[in-house]
Order: sequence, then structure tokens, then C-alpha cells
Amino acid sequence: MITKIVFGDPVRTDAVTARVPKGEKVKNFSLTREEKRLVFRCPLKAGDAVYGLGETMGRVNKRGGRYISFNTDTADHTDSNPSLYASHNFIVIDGERPFGAFFDTPAKVTFEIDYMGSGEVVADCETCDLNLYEIEGGSAYEVCRELIRAVGRCYLPPLWAFGYGQSRFGYASPEDFRAVADGYKNNGIPLDYICMDIDYMDGYRDFSFNERSFPDPAAFASDMRGRGIRLVPIVDAGIKIEPGDPVYEEGVKGGYFCKNRDGGFFSAGVWPGMTHFPDFLNTSAREWFGRQYKFYTDRGFEGFWNDMNEPAIFYSEYTKGLKNPLYRLAMDILFGKRRKEKKERELVRDYKSFFHDADGRRLRHYDVHNLFGAMMTRATSEGLERLLDHRFMLFSRSSFIGAGRYGGVWTGDNSSTWEHLMLNVRHMPSLNMCGFLFSGADTGGFGGNCTRELLLRWLAFSVFTPLMRNHTSKFTRNQEAYSFGDTDAFRKVIGLRYRLLPYIYSEYMKAALRSDMYIKPVEFVYPEAKGIEDQLLVGDSIMIAPVVTEGALSRNVFVPEDMTLVRYDGGFKCESASRGWHTVGVGLDEVVFFVRRGKLLPVGKPIMNTGEYDAAALELLGDGETYELYTDDGLTRECTEANIRLLKKA
Amino acid sequence: MITKIVFGDPVRTDAVTARVPKGEKVKNFSLTREEKRLVFRCPLKAGDAVYGLGETMGRVNKRGGRYISFNTDTADHTDSNPSLYASHNFIVIDGERPFGAFFDTPAKVTFEIDYMGSGEVVADCETCDLNLYEIEGGSAYEVCRELIRAVGRCYLPPLWAFGYGQSRFGYASPEDFRAVADGYKNNGIPLDYICMDIDYMDGYRDFSFNERSFPDPAAFASDMRGRGIRLVPIVDAGIKIEPGDPVYEEGVKGGYFCKNRDGGFFSAGVWPGMTHFPDFLNTSAREWFGRQYKFYTDRGFEGFWNDMNEPAIFYSEYTKGLKNPLYRLAMDILFGKRRKEKKERELVRDYKSFFHDADGRRLRHYDVHNLFGAMMTRATSEGLERLLDHRFMLFSRSSFIGAGRYGGVWTGDNSSTWEHLMLNVRHMPSLNMCGFLFSGADTGGFGGNCTRELLLRWLAFSVFTPLMRNHTSKFTRNQEAYSFGDTDAFRKVIGLRYRLLPYIYSEYMKAALRSDMYIKPVEFVYPEAKGIEDQLLVGDSIMIAPVVTEGALSRNVFVPEDMTLVRYDGGFKCESASRGWHTVGVGLDEVVFFVRRGKLLPVGKPIMNTGEYDAAALELLGDGETYELYTDDGLTRECTEANIRLLKKA
Repeated sequence: MITKIVFGDPVRTDAVTARVPKGEKVKNFSLTREEKRLVFRCPLKAGDAVYGLGETMGRVNKRGGRYISFNTDTADHTDSNPSLYASHNFIVIDGERPFGAFFDTPAKVTFEIDYMGSGEVVADCETCDLNLYEIEGGSAYEVCRELIRAVGRCYLPPLWAFGYGQSRFGYASPEDFRAVADGYKNNGIPLDYICMDIDYMDGYRDFSFNERSFPDPAAFASDMRGRGIRLVPIVDAGIKIEPGDPVYEEGVKGGYFCKNRDGGFFSAGVWPGMTHFPDFLNTSAREWFGRQYKFYTDRGFEGFWNDMNEPAIFYSEYTKGLKNPLYRLAMDILFGKRRKEKKERELVRDYKSFFHDADGRRLRHYDVHNLFGAMMTRATSEGLERLLDHRFMLFSRSSFIGAGRYGGVWTGDNSSTWEHLMLNVRHMPSLNMCGFLFSGADTGGFGGNCTRELLLRWLAFSVFTPLMRNHTSKFTRNQEAYSFGDTDAFRKVIGLRYRLLPYIYSEYMKAALRSDMYIKPVEFVYPEAKGIEDQLLVGDSIMIAPVVTEGALSRNVFVPEDMTLVRYDGGFKCESASRGWHTVGVGLDEVVFFVRRGKLLPVGKPIMNTGEYDAAALELLGDGETYELYTDDGLTRECTEANIRLLKKA
Repeated sequence: MITKIVFGDPVRTDAVTARVPKGEKVKNFSLTREEKRLVFRCPLKAGDAVYGLGETMGRVNKRGGRYISFNTDTADHTDSNPSLYASHNFIVIDGERPFGAFFDTPAKVTFEIDYMGSGEVVADCETCDLNLYEIEGGSAYEVCRELIRAVGRCYLPPLWAFGYGQSRFGYASPEDFRAVADGYKNNGIPLDYICMDIDYMDGYRDFSFNERSFPDPAAFASDMRGRGIRLVPIVDAGIKIEPGDPVYEEGVKGGYFCKNRDGGFFSAGVWPGMTHFPDFLNTSAREWFGRQYKFYTDRGFEGFWNDMNEPAIFYSEYTKGLKNPLYRLAMDILFGKRRKEKKERELVRDYKSFFHDADGRRLRHYDVHNLFGAMMTRATSEGLERLLDHRFMLFSRSSFIGAGRYGGVWTGDNSSTWEHLMLNVRHMPSLNMCGFLFSGADTGGFGGNCTRELLLRWLAFSVFTPLMRNHTSKFTRNQEAYSFGDTDAFRKVIGLRYRLLPYIYSEYMKAALRSDMYIKPVEFVYPEAKGIEDQLLVGDSIMIAPVVTEGALSRNVFVPEDMTLVRYDGGFKCESASRGWHTVGVGLDEVVFFVRRGKLLPVGKPIMNTGEYDAAALELLGDGETYELYTDDGLTRECTEANIRLLKKA
């Protein structure tokens, strides 16, 4: 049961698309109104779990932490940092009587959840205007599904987006990309796409190619397609201020950019130098921005990642006005260790200095900050829907609840640490709770050097995440799957992804069509697994128990009912696993997972990319009777229950 | 069997004190001589493990990594960083015929061990003058013990140094320290010492107290001793240039500082501003520096930590001469992302610009860089031996093999991440292999915010490390054991340390007296446990299997022979654990470990600090017959086998 309580005059976020009955007053929280904020509190009992918050630090059970919804470009993914790239203000309190709340405001919200042992939940909203959705249900899982239903149908990627992709900040020429394609091919490792980071651009300008390196992008894309590889360019939020450039000129002419207090366009320094930010809260601006992707679609590109859309600001008119480098120097000298804090204050000052025209309503950016990235995704997605007659790949760094309808997310600039592999494992169920089904982390880690062992363990987890992309930064150790000598283990682990394609694709599409989660905590289905966060349910048939500890040769797994243990080392080996704890050996060159009792798992033949996928040649593992297989041409927009057919065990 | 092969005219490191027969040529490596370097190589077989290297990144088995011995002040403890604070050039290749090698040179050495799948060990020494110790033995363990014997008897701390200590960069007044003592006392959590970070000093000058905050340090120390708490001040490597200051004047007069090429004293900017570095490679300078500790011992202090002795340099004459802030600005602008590399080059330039007078031999600092911290520890240790008639606590950040005779080490400025807990687990056996028995990490992590769960799991591991210190940086979340609400779990976990005191103290002292390791890999005793790096043997009776994974409620443990599982949750509960894999539940408020078959574990009564330790009131757990208990007054220097008495099971 979901109800909506309206406080003041909330900004329209379009997070929820379902009709929701209005309630009169808050049921599950005590409320304190302060001059410019609403503070919601509720006490916690000893055993209560608190779920939600999507892309945040902390565990799946958010107890003990402090989390701030204020979208931030940060590489500091540690408990020291309360804000990541996204704001997903949905929590579920799983006690005697489970209930959830979605604090639907693009303003800053601070959550303290039994922080330092306080014994209560505090949601401190920096606004007096918000929609509060209260949801009650028989279980935490039901509460989450109710939210997902309210948000509306999740983004549906094409089949190829479920392939494996390689990326690196630093691939700068067709030769670089061809070398990657060859590296994979020559080592017999499947690959579907390669991402193009900002190096492809002309001076880091969106909707441009460096013409010296890429004289004919269409031919290059076509050549790569011939090798079975799609190219996925990055698009940043800011439009470079470049008089004469048609995108820039059009934006100025249309007035599509965010404005300063005085009505001029707000300028922010990002990768290309000074830019204007499209006013993604404005319908015309979104339409205009979406149209720009024609530049790519005309050249045969059909997958994109949107970046820097918190929005990240390196420097601004304000800091630039103070002669940026000297100003920075002065800051360093004056504030030393408090520089980070200072930087945050600078950002806030920047965010407070520009404005949106939300279809007639003038809004200070700071007050709607958390919506910016989501609305960029929306602009892109709606644009691509008009430009293409089929599905496209799209994922974004920044997001807000509701953006899951328009595209996927990746969890930003993580690093090559085991900690971040664990974070990835925790993010997946939490993102699913908030309606973000197409998601994944930079496999192997973005910053820093990855080891062979970390990459293999990370890949073995990413096999199960809808977005499976290996990505690293500039100046780091090579991270392609063929870079660490002996490639046999990599071939096996990535090969598994392709053998599981019929399952992963079906489960994703069914979850999206049925307002369900694709990845969920084990305890959502098996209450006796409460507190076990390092095992996850993936779709309806599979339970995974990834190895997230360096040096571990085995891990223990709680099997909540009799299941089939599947060991993949190039072939599938099944054995039964009885209810209870098991110690499972997991070599670096294999992946172990479980098929639930009474369920089936369809697996395909080994293939080198999704183009070779044959839904007619499947094998069924597990002890179930039937499986609902989703099939289509991988591109059509006609994704309905009609595409599901029942497979029966022979 | 150990032999020494001498190349060129090696610098005297005093790493090895035993007489070692000379060999004529290298047995286990092929050698390439280049103009200014010696490169040693040997091939690896598929199953060979490679141990050693003490305080480095990577796993206990060093295969797959690249490690550079070049002592560095760095908070980047990730695989991206090849150099930490110490240089421990000892490796053991554990194949069909185990052998080890200690590359005894204070110059930079780069180890590549099956790096990116190369299949070989490369030790690239940036010098043509070194002593190579080759060691052959029946097992990797034997090879390590041979090195430990050759190094000479390990440092022996007083009993109180085996208590639990609290530390924080930021405690600045007697009130701060008293609040910590009270916090522990009021919550019933034992505590033996509190470390004093640089805030106690007058302008960050060694051998000074801020007189406004600490008008009477002797009275303050005495007051704290009355509460059962010792104070452990930090001492940094550089002596502030402060004409009129007696320490500085004496140093100048004696010529005890490192010199520039032109004969003047080398100046480096560190915490106090410009400083001179004592010439720790010079015997008179060491004696002079050691004498300075009288300042503390006269005031009742008997424990110290030596820091910044890589030596860390914030800026130097060279960079300062170029008007440091502007120079730094220029670097930032010119080099952007390559700033780190640039900084390293600056440091190297600094290190190449000053000189030691090693008792008559003029040595460029860069060429003996890795010896600096070790020789500071030696200066302190030898000084304290003259100043005190009993044992003292001492641990250092930087070290070189051999320094383990003079004091302990902590593993530097880690951060509050699970990754660094794992690193701590791996460092301990590796440090022991190199003769560093008194060691530990900053429990809970130095940088960043620690969570309750991480601190509890980390404490549960640190219970078993000789140095058990909770330490954090400025501006981080409170990390004292009483800071996270409900303190019951902390009381239990830290309480266990004190109940194990008879064992920990005995095992440490016996290991030191018998040239043994205190912590060792399980596979050193049980070859069938090969590759299991997250379980360790602590002393002769205990095997531990720490929980190093966030959210884990249990872990699996390989029990290599029938053992006794001991669960401590305020009391000891024993059950038998048969040989094989076990899944062991481990709550946050308990510690689980194992007592080996045929061994005994003496445990004491609950106490609030080591002063209350009563070696006469012990209980014996396990199925053994006898236990060798080491007892003395906790301070005497007369530490011999005579202090060991045989306990027999009643």
C-alpha cells in the first residue's frame, strides 16, 4: 500500500509515474519542521534491518551509517565519504511491520540510520517542499516492488548490451580500438563492445570526433561492427563555449543552458574548458539535447554513456574569476588539509549561483541538484527513442529515482581494490530496490592497478550484473582480459557470461516487464538468510556467492534450501547441495553458483559475441519443470509477455 | 645453510650479526652485471610459492607482483604503489628445493616476481656493491629461521607493550588524554598506553613539550601512570633548525647532521619547518641522538614511536629555493596528472643531494636511503639501553632488515578499509619472516572513517599481533573503542587480549629467544594448507582465522588436523574441530580461534591493564600435556630460557 503525502509545493521530479492515492499525514515517522527543512525520524528495534538508498556507501543493511544524497563526482568511495554520484532517497525499514519511504525531493537529504548507535532513523531534508511516499507491505521485498511499480517500467537495453565490454580512459585512435578487438579475438575471449572515453572527441567537445584520429567515424564504426564489436562513445554534460560551433550556437540561440542570477548563461570549467550546462529540467532543452545524438546515430553508433552529470565542475566563473590557479594556490596555503572541505563549499557556492527554467518555474540549481543527471539521461533516452527505431544502450553516472526508466547506471570512478569489488556486490541489490536494473561497476576497478586475481574474481561476479564492463583509467596497468599472461581462466569466466545469456536476458526482461528486481538480497526470498549480504539472488533461478576476498581459495555459502551447485570451468558440472552451510572451493579459473530447487537454468552454446546467440540451441540445468524464456530479435521495442515462451524439461 | 657472496665493496648495513661462511659464486640465480646494477634472475615453476619482502603490498605469496624497495612516506597502500615505508629484501622461493636470498644493500631494489605472468623472479639492484646471502633449507620455514638467526636476537619489549593502546593524531592536551583514559575506564575496557602524536610538541620539535598545554610533563605522566596508563610520545627524524635550541646547537656543534655536497648541513622541510637530518649512519651522531631521549626518560616516559624516518620530506632547500608554493603551482599547471611522478623525481633529487659520514666513509644518501629509518631505530634503542636499566617500548615506521633487533615496526599510515585489514593479516607473517616480531598495524585504520564493524573485526585480529594499537588521523570519525554506542562487544574483544596475555607474552619471548617467528603462515607447519593466507599460526599453540570481509557472519576455515575450536565471548567455550573445512559462525562480539592438537593455551583472569597480570592464576585450555610459560617482572633485561617454566595440566 503506497500513499503520497505532499509537503508544500514540491518540484516535479517525475520519479513516480503511477497514480498514487494521497494521504493526509505521515504514518511511520515523527516529523519536525524547521525553518527550511523537514526532519523525519523513527526509532529502530534491535533486529530491524534498513534497506535502500541505492548507490551509497555502507552495507546492504544501512544501519550504522550516515549517507548524504547530494550527487558528487568523487573517487573517494569509502565510508569517509557520505555522497556518491546518485541520490536514491528510498529506505525500507524491515521490522515487525515492514514499511518504506521515498523522500521525493531533488534537494539534499541526510540519512542517519542508527548512526554511532543512535537507535533511530533520521532523514533530514533540506527543503520544506517534497512528496513523501509511504509504502507498507508484507515484507521488505513487497515494499520494494511497490516502489518499482510506482516508478514505472524500467529501461530495456538491446541484447548486445548484455554482452561483455572493454573500456579504458586513454584509447585514442582506431589502432587502439582495433588492438583491443584483436587482443580479445586472438585469445578466444568474447567481446561485444568497446567504450570510447573522452579521447575520441575533438577538444573534449560532445558531438565531435577528433578528425585527425577519426577522419571517418562511420566507416570506423562499420568496420568494427564487421568484427562483431560495437563502439560506445561517452557524452559529458557540459557544452563547450565555442562560438561558431553549431551545437553551442544552437544552444545559445534556443536559450537551452542554465542561467546565472543576472540571466546570462552559467559557465563551468570541465574537460573541454569553459562550458554551459544544458538546462535538463526544461522540456525544450531536453528535446534539443536529445536531438544532438543524431550526430552519432547517423554514423552508426547506438550505445552511449553519459558522464560528468552530477554535474562535475572543475572550476567556475567564480573561481576562475579569482584567477583560478592562484586562487587554488591560496586555498592550498591557507587551508591546507581542509582543502577538501573548502572545495565542497566552492561547489555549493557554484551550485547556488545558477538556475533552471523548469518549464516556467525558476529553480535554483542547488535546490534541485540531485535531479540534473537523471534529466540528462531522460533527454538522451527520449532523443534516442525519436532517432532510432530500435533499442539502444545507455548508462549514466549520476541518477535519481525514476531515471531507471530511461537508462542504466554504472557506479562511477571506483578503484582496483577488493573493497570496491565488495561495494559492487552491495550496490547491485540496493540499486535494484530503487528501480535501477541495468547496472554494474567498472569491473577490475577504474583507478589504480588491478591484479590478475582481482580482475578474475571481479569478472566472475560481473558475469551476473546486467552491465559487464571492464574499465580503467589513464596511467594504470593494462587491464584487458588478455593482459596478464595465461588467458585460459579469463576465457572461461567471460565465456560463462555468454553461455548464460539466455538466462540473463530473459530474467532481466521479465523483471523489467513485471516491475521486479533482477538482483535481490537472498533474505528477500529466504528470511533465514537474514544478514547474509555476500550472496545474492540473480533472477528467479540463480543464487550467487562471489569470492570477494584476496587469496581465498574457497568461501562458505549458506544454502537456504536444497539446491544444485553449478561449477563452470569451461563446462557445467552440477552436484546437489543440501540446505545448510557449505564450504565451496572456487579456483580462479572457474565460477560457482547455485540453481534453486524447482527452477531451471537455460544455457547456450559457447559464442564470441551476442550476434551469434541462438535461442533455439539451449540446454536446461536444474531440477525444475519449466522455464519462461524471453526471446526477441534483441532490438525491437515490442517487448511484452508475448515474447516469453515456456520451455519444458525434456 | 647460509652463505654470503660479496659483490664489490658493500656498505656496512649491520643487518646480519652472525658469522656467515663466504661463498664464491651465486648458486640459485643467473646474474647480469650492468654498469651500475646487478640483476639476479631465476625461473619459477608453476607451483612454486615466493615468500618474504616483509612490509610490501601484494599477498603472502608474492607471485604476480612488482615491488620496489625504496622507503617511501605514502598513504597509497594499494597495488598501484610499489614502495611502502620499509625495505626487506629477503625472498624465499618455495619449490622442490626451497631456497632464500637476502639482497643486503641499502640501495633501491626492484623485485618482479612472475610479474604479468613472466614466469621468473627478477631482483634488480641499483648497485654493484652488495652482500648476497643465499640460504638453503629443507623448507621455506627453515630458510626463514636461518635468516632470523643470522640477523640476531629480536627486540624484547616490556610486558606493558603487549597491552592495548589508543592513539590519535589530534590529542593535544592533558584533558584529551584523560578523556581517553576515562572513556576506557568508564566502559570497563582495558587500556595500557596512549600514544602522543606530534601535537604534544612545541612547534613540532623533537624533545620538547608544548609548555602551555603541558606545563609539567613529568607530573602528567605520573598522574596517568597512577591510572594505569603509560604515555608513548612520537619522535620524528628531523631536528628543527632553531638557533638557541640546545638540541639543534649541540647537533651543529658536533656535526651530527647530514651534509650537502658543499659540506653545509642539508635542510629539509617537514612538520616543524626546515630541519636537519641526524646522520644516523654515523656512530657518534647515533650516540648523540640516543642521548636526547633523556629528556623523556627523566620525565618518566619509557615508550616511543619513531616516525617520518624514510626520511619523509615535504619540501627541501631545492624546492624551497625555487620558492616552493609557486614552484608547486607551476608543477601542477605543467604536469597535471603526472604530479605524483614529478614529486617522486623531486624526492630522488633531494635524496641524491645529501651525504652521510658512515664513520669515515662518505656515502650519498640516495645510495643508502633504505637504511636511514633502521639506523634511527638503532640510535634510539642503543640510547635508551644506556638511559634505562629496564626494557622500553619502541616501534618505528621505516625499517630495514636487522632493525628488528632494536625495536618494532608499525605498518604506517593505512586507512579505515577492509582492504587494509587484509593487508595487515598478510603483513604479519611476512614481517616475521624478516625478523620483525614486534609489529602491528594502525588498528581501525589511520586515514578515513572507521565503522563499528570494521573496528571490531580489526581488533579481533589485532588481539593476536604483538603491537595492538588503535590509531587514527585528524579530522576522522572518533575511533576509540567506546565511540560507537554499545560497548559490550569491544569490552569482550579487547578483554580477550588481556586474558591471552600469558600466552602472547610467552610465545613472543620464546620466539625471540629461539630465533623463531611469532606469527607464521599455516602452510609453514601444515603443507596441506598451501595457499591459505587468511589463516595464521600465532605462537606454537594457536591458529587464527580472522574475519576480514564486511558483512560476513561466518567464514570457512581449513583445520589441517584435529584441533580445539575456542570461542571467546567473555568466557572461553571449547569444542572439538575435526580435520577438514569448517564453516564457523563468528559474531561481532566474539573471537574464534583454534588450539592445535597436543598443545596447551594458558589464559589469565580478566584484568584492566598489564599491571594486574598474575602469572600464578592461570587456566589451561586445549588437549596438550605441558606448556612452557615465560615469566619475569615484565621489565628486566635478563630474558633467558631460565625464565621459562613448564606448566603441566592438572
